[in-house]
Amino acid sequence: MSFSVTILGSSSALPTPARSLTAHLVNHDERFFLIDCGEGTQIQLRKLKAKSLKINHILISHLHGDHVYGIFGLLSSMSMMGRKQDLYIYCDPRLETIIKSHFNYFNDTISFQIIYKPFHPKKVQNIYDDGKLEIVAFPLKHRIPCMGFVFREKPKEKRINKFFIDELGLGIKDIVNIKRGNNYVLPNGEVILNEKLVLPSGPLYSYAYCTDTRPLESIAGYIKGVDLLYHEATFLNEDAALAKTTYHSTAGDAANIALKAGVKKLCIGHFSQRYKHESFFLKQAKYVFENTILAEDGLCIQICS
Amino acid sequence: MSFSVTILGSSSALPTPARSLTAHLVNHDERFFLIDCGEGTQIQLRKLKAKSLKINHILISHLHGDHVYGIFGLLSSMSMMGRKQDLYIYCDPRLETIIKSHFNYFNDTISFQIIYKPFHPKKVQNIYDDGKLEIVAFPLKHRIPCMGFVFREKPKEKRINKFFIDELGLGIKDIVNIKRGNNYVLPNGEVILNEKLVLPSGPLYSYAYCTDTRPLESIAGYIKGVDLLYHEATFLNEDAALAKTTYHSTAGDAANIALKAGVKKLCIGHFSQRYKHESFFLKQAKYVFENTILAEDGLCIQICS
Repeated sequence: MSFSVTILGSSSALPTPARSLTAHLVNHDERFFLIDCGEGTQIQLRKLKAKSLKINHILISHLHGDHVYGIFGLLSSMSMMGRKQDLYIYCDPRLETIIKSHFNYFNDTISFQIIYKPFHPKKVQNIYDDGKLEIVAFPLKHRIPCMGFVFREKPKEKRINKFFIDELGLGIKDIVNIKRGNNYVLPNGEVILNEKLVLPSGPLYSYAYCTDTRPLESIAGYIKGVDLLYHEATFLNEDAALAKTTYHSTAGDAANIALKAGVKKLCIGHFSQRYKHESFFLKQAKYVFENTILAEDGLCIQICS
Repeated sequence: MSFSVTILGSSSALPTPARSLTAHLVNHDERFFLIDCGEGTQIQLRKLKAKSLKINHILISHLHGDHVYGIFGLLSSMSMMGRKQDLYIYCDPRLETIIKSHFNYFNDTISFQIIYKPFHPKKVQNIYDDGKLEIVAFPLKHRIPCMGFVFREKPKEKRINKFFIDELGLGIKDIVNIKRGNNYVLPNGEVILNEKLVLPSGPLYSYAYCTDTRPLESIAGYIKGVDLLYHEATFLNEDAALAKTTYHSTAGDAANIALKAGVKKLCIGHFSQRYKHESFFLKQAKYVFENTILAEDGLCIQICS
């Protein structure tokens, strides 16, 4: 089972020579999800040898250019490469109109079906569930409607300890019952607890993505205990006033959310170009939440390892 | 006097790890012109430390995504950087509607004035003239209307040889007349030829940009004798049939145009990703036209040197 996040772009607003605009590639068990799609995302995918045709789900947090202007080129290139498979886009309802209008103007025919899954831009909602993984979108607080996403693995089907099948002479009905979590009752009335009959299920991993946003108490509730939190840290602590005006967070804000939510690891990114040394972001975040790393373009973070 | 072309992107259709999508930056005497603006152009400008705010003129050859999808991000970033100066866009008339519609959808207010200079997509026309440089647009032959551009320096104002001002006792009226190209007549009727009275004016340099197009005889007429020709060479000679179907050129086609037009140097680019080794393009072009070079992202070609 693989579960990883690759940072494709970690700059805010404007690209820099080292940092492209926002996009993350999530690989869960060889299902690929793209979160946000700033200009140059298709170029980053190629540089990192990630196969864009394997992406079947694109989630767009909000309609600011630095998070979405790359979608036109990416969809167009997928079409040029002959994609036939359906592609799902989870987004603000207005994006469907924008994409259709764009390709209509350019007379560009897309070779595959795009299935739009518009979300309510202000409600907590389950936007994806394949039985193994679910994704919940929740509102952030930015200048325009903006959503965060939390990816959580779902409990796997219980696997019965084969030793007991022979030992207790279990039939199919018994096995199904035990897999559903029930105890087993012997003919003499003795109860064998379910946890004794099944193999340990292993941990369930999770990942949360929060950008762009002011620091928001409610986020901690939605992302409680995730293994990895990506949270924007556009500004250093000393520019908290600027962060507030522009509806962004500081390094300290991101770390506070990580602490409150009890996450295992924090990755901060979306740095403003005004700062020359990103090491200050790390220092300020680590002061509050030790297990913090800096986003770097091309960085692949293993969530289950 | 500087006159150079920097290749920002030299791939066709799809970006590759080494080649970005089409865009050229022309610097004529510190006036900057961007020709085409594929996705990632603003990123390439930043990587090459070119100041995008210095660009006052953008020329778009045609409305295929790989030549224009970067314009939305570039304009948006110029605005974020606080640009106030007018920007001129020379383009197919439809691009004005597309850009306006795009920024309207995204509720993005641009901080400067965009002045559209639509060109007739099928006529030869002078689209720019600042007294020192003129740009002529001419039709190419692609699947959709597409224009080539030729940049030619204009004759500089004649500089009078100061020796003769005292020697002949020239007045302001005489000097103006000589600068206009007239001869000078002495009181005794003797004629002194204009070329003797003025300093040598030096050569006039020129650059032509032709992509995307089938090979077209008429191009040679428009770009006669230019110092540098950039001509697309999407395919190798053995794929001439494919070049024809897709309205592109081969390496040999580009070299033939260079030969017919009597240009001084040819630069080929817009290579298809189907080929692993671009050295074959060079070999095939050089077989016809020796002074050929391959486009590379970041390559800066000095036109007057």
